[in-house]
Amino acid sequence: MTTRSQRLGAGGEFDRLRAIFARLGPAARDLGDDCALVSVGGRTLAITIDLSLEGVHFRTDWLSFREIGWRATAAALSDLAAEGATPLGVLTSVGLPVRDRGRGKGRADPGTEIMVGVGAAARHVGAHVLGGDLVRSPRYLVDVCAVGLADRPVRRSGARPDDGLWVTGRLGGAGLALRRLQAHRRPERRLRPRFARPVPRIAAGRWLARRGRGHAMIDISDGLAGDAGHLAAASGVAIAIELERVPCWPGVTPRDAVRSGEEYELLVALPRGFGERHARAFRRFTGLPLTRIGWCTRGRGVRMLDHGRRITPASGFDQFPVR
Amino acid sequence: MTTRSQRLGAGGEFDRLRAIFARLGPAARDLGDDCALVSVGGRTLAITIDLSLEGVHFRTDWLSFREIGWRATAAALSDLAAEGATPLGVLTSVGLPVRDRGRGKGRADPGTEIMVGVGAAARHVGAHVLGGDLVRSPRYLVDVCAVGLADRPVRRSGARPDDGLWVTGRLGGAGLALRRLQAHRRPERRLRPRFARPVPRIAAGRWLARRGRGHAMIDISDGLAGDAGHLAAASGVAIAIELERVPCWPGVTPRDAVRSGEEYELLVALPRGFGERHARAFRRFTGLPLTRIGWCTRGRGVRMLDHGRRITPASGFDQFPVR
Repeated sequence: MTTRSQRLGAGGEFDRLRAIFARLGPAARDLGDDCALVSVGGRTLAITIDLSLEGVHFRTDWLSFREIGWRATAAALSDLAAEGATPLGVLTSVGLPVRDRGRGKGRADPGTEIMVGVGAAARHVGAHVLGGDLVRSPRYLVDVCAVGLADRPVRRSGARPDDGLWVTGRLGGAGLALRRLQAHRRPERRLRPRFARPVPRIAAGRWLARRGRGHAMIDISDGLAGDAGHLAAASGVAIAIELERVPCWPGVTPRDAVRSGEEYELLVALPRGFGERHARAFRRFTGLPLTRIGWCTRGRGVRMLDHGRRITPASGFDQFPVR
Repeated sequence: MTTRSQRLGAGGEFDRLRAIFARLGPAARDLGDDCALVSVGGRTLAITIDLSLEGVHFRTDWLSFREIGWRATAAALSDLAAEGATPLGVLTSVGLPVRDRGRGKGRADPGTEIMVGVGAAARHVGAHVLGGDLVRSPRYLVDVCAVGLADRPVRRSGARPDDGLWVTGRLGGAGLALRRLQAHRRPERRLRPRFARPVPRIAAGRWLARRGRGHAMIDISDGLAGDAGHLAAASGVAIAIELERVPCWPGVTPRDAVRSGEEYELLVALPRGFGERHARAFRRFTGLPLTRIGWCTRGRGVRMLDHGRRITPASGFDQFPVR
């Protein structure tokens, strides 16, 4: 299963996506960021698309169909959060195996359940289900296009030397839940939603864009280590992360937390003057911790420090085979 | 292969899509039309999503990878055309089998070829490739979200009794090309693009919305008979079609032409006063014929007339099994 780094779009193969889009020449714009930005009537529209496939991104024995719909939608909405955008709505393409056609009325219909999950995730952040396409497919698939408004969009590319590097929430819960499921164990009641029903950090993203004057932001989908690398590369800076500062889910070590994908927390480069007082204001507004875990410097790449000693960064989940 | 009525979204199963979206309650808006409409900064945004799957909507032995990308993109852009919208851009999720990873440099890469096709179809109508997602998948898939501006959007639901019913271009070419491919024959050089490289009728749609003051419009994806039914149902009118008036591709009978899916021509209800003089102006602007094939009346459903004699309407392609 899962993590975005099993997609071609992540890790070393992210370059492949960029190469393909680069060939499109002048028709391709703003690629490689969380969202595309389009100016419409004096506003800035943020748009993103995110594909989830059965057997690649989810398994029907691990998640309910509602959770599958929620999770796919939350993944797309998380890209809007990382832009500091306010969601307007989602469009969803759903693929359903023919085996589920015409089943008895007594049983919940997978297509309906998936769309109920999509609708619930959208409503949770004040967005609408704007449209969709429904197709017979050998396996379940959910592709979600999310549209929002970003009056102060925050790209991946704006981090500057001396910026502080901060992260929302606590990391590692999604990875821990995944390991439980892989071991055929049921995740604890409070842990399971970290994997099955992630909440896109919309209010947090808006606060960090507007109040925090964030310079650069990305959502943690490939794991902190990998996404810090994307942010550093896009911004042309180096990033140092102090492992002992990383806020971890109970029972998760920092080394596991920085490799945990699909956390859907936000990693943000904030101006040097942003401090603990501001982080407390953030927490009052969002209910989430905001923790400084490192800083940006001149240079390139990500340095991971464990109590001042440099360690080899774990680079995502490429070791997991696609089934 | 193909035609949208093999999707769950068409024919009798279109109702299933509507039922699923209806369950979403207040989060669902404007569903069942070609595009979703969203007001942004005093402008009206039109958005649509359209999923194409290998083995369901296309076969890699019938189409090149460029054609697969073009065709999927044209299908989404055609929904914008049917709204009278001007495209801004597309976002595309592409699924690629793992078997195509790391192939030799000498061979064209399917992922690149698909995206080149997507980019070419977008550029053809002045649109940009805004973003995308690339995923490992057991089969090829291309999902395209198209975004445009519709200053005078034309819904399916605006037809009125006494409106004339008109169609752009000539019908039946796509179906004829498909039959050739199914019979392992190569379609003629001029015929093949009707299936492999359809051109979304963007300029035609805009003209019909603005100059023609169209009341209702839909693109012909399920076949004229089926799409006329959608338009009649959405508008609460009856439609009569005179079979002998239907403009046909050379070698195609009207009965086959009205059942030919994925033609991507436009079916439009125009005010009674719209006549041949206006159709000539349309042709000067777009290079396409515009033919009056019937009219709207009070009532419901679609009547198909052959020289005044009523015939049973062919209702799309539900008889073709999904492979």
